[in-house]
Amino acid sequence: MTRVTVGIDIGGTTTDFAFVDRDGACLAGGSMRTDAHADIEPYLGELVGSIERCKSDSSLSLELIGCGIGAPNANYFTGTVDHAPNLSWKGVVPLAALLSEQLAVPAVLTNDANAAALGEMLFGSAKGLTDFVLVTLGTGLGSGFVTGGELLYGHDGFAGELGHTIVIPEGRECGCGRRGCLETYVSVSGLMRTVRQLLEDGQASSLADQDPTSLKGEDVFTAAQSGDVLALNAFERTGRLLGLALANTVAITSPSDIILFGGLVGSGDLLLKPTQAAFEENLLNIYRGNVNLSLSGLRGSEAAVQGAAALSWKELEQHHDGH
Amino acid sequence: MTRVTVGIDIGGTTTDFAFVDRDGACLAGGSMRTDAHADIEPYLGELVGSIERCKSDSSLSLELIGCGIGAPNANYFTGTVDHAPNLSWKGVVPLAALLSEQLAVPAVLTNDANAAALGEMLFGSAKGLTDFVLVTLGTGLGSGFVTGGELLYGHDGFAGELGHTIVIPEGRECGCGRRGCLETYVSVSGLMRTVRQLLEDGQASSLADQDPTSLKGEDVFTAAQSGDVLALNAFERTGRLLGLALANTVAITSPSDIILFGGLVGSGDLLLKPTQAAFEENLLNIYRGNVNLSLSGLRGSEAAVQGAAALSWKELEQHHDGH
Repeated sequence: MTRVTVGIDIGGTTTDFAFVDRDGACLAGGSMRTDAHADIEPYLGELVGSIERCKSDSSLSLELIGCGIGAPNANYFTGTVDHAPNLSWKGVVPLAALLSEQLAVPAVLTNDANAAALGEMLFGSAKGLTDFVLVTLGTGLGSGFVTGGELLYGHDGFAGELGHTIVIPEGRECGCGRRGCLETYVSVSGLMRTVRQLLEDGQASSLADQDPTSLKGEDVFTAAQSGDVLALNAFERTGRLLGLALANTVAITSPSDIILFGGLVGSGDLLLKPTQAAFEENLLNIYRGNVNLSLSGLRGSEAAVQGAAALSWKELEQHHDGH
Repeated sequence: MTRVTVGIDIGGTTTDFAFVDRDGACLAGGSMRTDAHADIEPYLGELVGSIERCKSDSSLSLELIGCGIGAPNANYFTGTVDHAPNLSWKGVVPLAALLSEQLAVPAVLTNDANAAALGEMLFGSAKGLTDFVLVTLGTGLGSGFVTGGELLYGHDGFAGELGHTIVIPEGRECGCGRRGCLETYVSVSGLMRTVRQLLEDGQASSLADQDPTSLKGEDVFTAAQSGDVLALNAFERTGRLLGLALANTVAITSPSDIILFGGLVGSGDLLLKPTQAAFEENLLNIYRGNVNLSLSGLRGSEAAVQGAAALSWKELEQHHDGH
């Protein structure tokens, strides 16, 4: 028997799951549409059915000992998903309790960035680190803070919303209802807004020939690689704002490492070089040269379910240790 | 015998100490000039002599069991004061080890804002809180973060430098060598810079009759209380920047409480009202209404030595508990 936890990553469109062993190997897994069900009961019915089928179909003998869930608006303390704007379920959903009952194992949940941070700590490039920050750069900007070897949850379970720090007062409108949040500038969608703004300002670019509403991140990446000045400028602006925000973050939690993760990281040096430059420029002298900025060691589609599974592994081990 | 720790608060000009019991009562204490000695040895000689004399002179029977020190540029992990620009000692001074040897009790040190946070947690308005931020508003702006019941030190002992987050890129010159740090706007000296800037801009004010270089915080406070528009404007600007910075801080550590402390807090509603307004305005919806902004429960000259003593009490109890 191989002891595994099941990691479940719930996104607005897709739900992925995998059985993950203590070394982080994804031994079996599956996927389903999150938005196929308006209500939570039929959604959970399909999910639990898929998980059980996947387990019994596996040629490995898997012993399921825990369940970890990464989801938007997830609260670690209450085990609930609260009013998630990107999910069709309404109100406060006690997801951990429901899954624990139906899978007959302890279940625990947190938001996707926190789960990603634990994945890095147990299985990835943050092994052995006690103080680091994981920043996810996807459609939005998420963050998970580990301090003193533990995820920082805050008093209510909602710590780590770096994407919703206001960096430009009265700046761009954000989905949260305010203006100027970091994620409206630093994320895949933030980069695209910067590109469209520069196009509207009339900057010359190979991207000007395309319909601005159908422009994608890959188009900007390709243009920047070909030396397009507007596209390079957009990456430069994005990286500089990110570097400043990260330097300010260091002045609060003083991590040894900041790990970048998610779709935007695929652009490599186009983003990293201006980020690194602005980071070092804006860092207080006592921190300078002492904080490593790096890319995630976990890549691709497995990272999210590994993170969710890591949450469960960590929880099981803490209970075992009597914490 | 009453068991006490000695709290030592080291400032650029003055060093204060007091024997503090587990309830936070300062039972005896004293003071000396920090800047009377260019070197550390004669400084420590005078300090230890004063502490021992004070103890033997006391009518109470005091049992000294620990020493806590609050000092600028102090590192909790190493027990050293590192290159403090406001102290005459050069280089890295192993202050905790030196005091522990000379007083024959365990000694521990941290920066003054961290010590103040522990003072609030053990003796003040943060009793029972596990996640809060203490912000000191004096000549500069210091901060101490408590998360999950523990001071947040970061990987290197230097966490909690909220005053050196850059809030206005290319803004005012800061003593740290960079520009636009929060403390260049939000602190007693920041308020005075704002007043002088408004005077230079030609705004009418009763303060315009005074020599701008001799203007003091109290003058601005008195003018604001009399309805002087420029002085009110300076408090408004200071409070609004503070409120935004605190809202951004909540998005990182999600505290239940933010406690303001130090000289600027004496201005009461002049500062608090704009701070509170900007804080609530800029808070992400999930935090709104859930974070208390309040004034320190520890007032006056005793708070700093109480905080330093609290550090020692906390350390002794953690060792006793086997942590």
